[in-house]
Amino acid sequence: MHIAAVSLEIIKTASNGLTRAGVLHTPHGPVATPVFMPVGTQATVKTLSPDELHAIGAGIILSNTYHLYLRPGHELIERAGGLHAFMGWDGAILTDSGGFQVFSLGPLRRITEQGVEFRSHIDGSKHMFTPESVMEVEMALGADIAMCFDECAPYPSTWEYAKASADMTTRWAERCLAAHNRADQSLFGIVQGSMYADLRKASARDLASLGFPGFGIGGLSVGEPKPLMYEMLDITLPVLPPDKPRYLMGVGSPDALLEGVARGIDMFDCVLPTRIARNGTVFTRQGRIIVRDAAFAEDMRPLDPGCDCYACTHFTRAYIRHLIKAGEVLGIRLTSIHNLRYLVKMMEEMRASIIDGRFDDYLKETRAVWYNN
Amino acid sequence: MHIAAVSLEIIKTASNGLTRAGVLHTPHGPVATPVFMPVGTQATVKTLSPDELHAIGAGIILSNTYHLYLRPGHELIERAGGLHAFMGWDGAILTDSGGFQVFSLGPLRRITEQGVEFRSHIDGSKHMFTPESVMEVEMALGADIAMCFDECAPYPSTWEYAKASADMTTRWAERCLAAHNRADQSLFGIVQGSMYADLRKASARDLASLGFPGFGIGGLSVGEPKPLMYEMLDITLPVLPPDKPRYLMGVGSPDALLEGVARGIDMFDCVLPTRIARNGTVFTRQGRIIVRDAAFAEDMRPLDPGCDCYACTHFTRAYIRHLIKAGEVLGIRLTSIHNLRYLVKMMEEMRASIIDGRFDDYLKETRAVWYNN
Repeated sequence: MHIAAVSLEIIKTASNGLTRAGVLHTPHGPVATPVFMPVGTQATVKTLSPDELHAIGAGIILSNTYHLYLRPGHELIERAGGLHAFMGWDGAILTDSGGFQVFSLGPLRRITEQGVEFRSHIDGSKHMFTPESVMEVEMALGADIAMCFDECAPYPSTWEYAKASADMTTRWAERCLAAHNRADQSLFGIVQGSMYADLRKASARDLASLGFPGFGIGGLSVGEPKPLMYEMLDITLPVLPPDKPRYLMGVGSPDALLEGVARGIDMFDCVLPTRIARNGTVFTRQGRIIVRDAAFAEDMRPLDPGCDCYACTHFTRAYIRHLIKAGEVLGIRLTSIHNLRYLVKMMEEMRASIIDGRFDDYLKETRAVWYNN
Repeated sequence: MHIAAVSLEIIKTASNGLTRAGVLHTPHGPVATPVFMPVGTQATVKTLSPDELHAIGAGIILSNTYHLYLRPGHELIERAGGLHAFMGWDGAILTDSGGFQVFSLGPLRRITEQGVEFRSHIDGSKHMFTPESVMEVEMALGADIAMCFDECAPYPSTWEYAKASADMTTRWAERCLAAHNRADQSLFGIVQGSMYADLRKASARDLASLGFPGFGIGGLSVGEPKPLMYEMLDITLPVLPPDKPRYLMGVGSPDALLEGVARGIDMFDCVLPTRIARNGTVFTRQGRIIVRDAAFAEDMRPLDPGCDCYACTHFTRAYIRHLIKAGEVLGIRLTSIHNLRYLVKMMEEMRASIIDGRFDDYLKETRAVWYNN
């Protein structure tokens, strides 16, 4: 068995036996876990520079295979020296497989056992993703972690559809494993099974038996009520090997980060913090505020008093509101920096509380702020 | 006579007897001249942070009274501690008077001896600018340099219109002087006179006699051929006191910066570098390039090899082109940083050549690149 490029070192497990703090070792350095990964869909975390990503404490980011395959193309990125070199980011990167994106195209795609035929959202041109072709693209991009090509079943799905879909995802995972041969990149499997406990367990068992060095939990946060998502995590995680990293895909609201970590998740990603930032909504220790509201026109406090980010240490709510109202780019840069720093710092605090044996208290206090906020 | 908040120390005059290198002393620190001032219309230089302005070597920026008066309002900015504090910029600032903006509103404004009635471009509301009210706004903003409220005559204007307009600008300058009483801010007069040599000379003489600590040259770069602008500078500048700073308003193309400095201009401002940056056009030592063009898709060189800016030391043309094509904010941030650094560095090089007695050679070499480019 070959040595995985990426591995998780668990430093401390909380008293609940599930929650853990660790270090994800990657070819681009160690990353403290649990970790939130900012999303850089098009080889850039929207509005931020690589320097700013370092400053907010991001150690690993996510980028989207579907988008980069279409524009500027994975061959170009490979010729540029890979995604790290192309975008000037020397931290770690995870690429998704494009599975979620192509399934989201709706009428523009057709799924078969072979793969997925789809039309580009940019120019309508026809393309085909197969497990083998996606591995080729992800290997060309050269992220530290590549995700298997999977089918993300819609919510709700019938048990029959979800079972067929999860089984195909497992067969595709085997094809991905066979096609993947880049030693400095780890390939993670993706657990599916919609909202059915038996399918989730079977999918996790099947994927685990294939020996992946890490696992994504896919098909959640797709419209289901949050308690159902948490139930699926409760059911799935115990089936996965405890020493391997677990990544809850597409989740990034503060309450869900808390609940995910409480259940044993190590990694998260989501566009939420940067998307709401561009609409003028920011996280604070008192919950979300919409800083573009008139209520903040004369507010000379930082976005979140006590936050150590560039926005909060240099500018007032009144100024940032003005920038956003005036359509100035600096406004959404500052709210994006703040929201990402907020989540990164939340993970740092969670990690410290796990290591110090205070996670239960942290969970109680923070739930009070964020539950359903 | 009171001591001006802002004064020019001339360090070296070139052998042509016109071109000079100096230091503009301001309440927010010394600024090396000749200087290009990036434009921060709405209390932000578009897409940039104050940290980035410092990094590109900007010592003074311009902000627009008309825009800030309308949004967020000068009273709010005053309550925030003034424009420097509001926008987190500890370098020097110059505010224009809104004259150029309200005259550009066309049918939305009406000019009388008293002042200008206009409608807001944001919500159509009715407002009146007078020399006295503009002084109130500029004093509230608290820039290091405030400009007099002037009439910028359209191009072309008849001699009669231009004369009446320049004469009124002089009367308004007297009213501005009478109304201005902020000791930590210098008020500059503005020379007008359209493209008429006799009117330009008379305006410069009139303004000079009022004892301003500095002078804007207004009403140029308004559509006239460049040789005509240079002719007006040749005629106007000898009439102004040689020890006071001269500021050529709204000029920022590399060739015009060269020709302005050659004639004795100390200060410039223009939206050009940031505006063309947002369309993907950048300055290089070989002239302008449109980096969003397909020709640069695989170009792994920096925007301008040899440039020391953040964009050029970290990213390729191929990457920046991708960002701009994909509509990503980082793309226009990088081109904006580069174009501003290009002009700031050009001024630094010009200044060094003046001090080293090489200005004639510098002018010859650089004209070859930039003449009509």
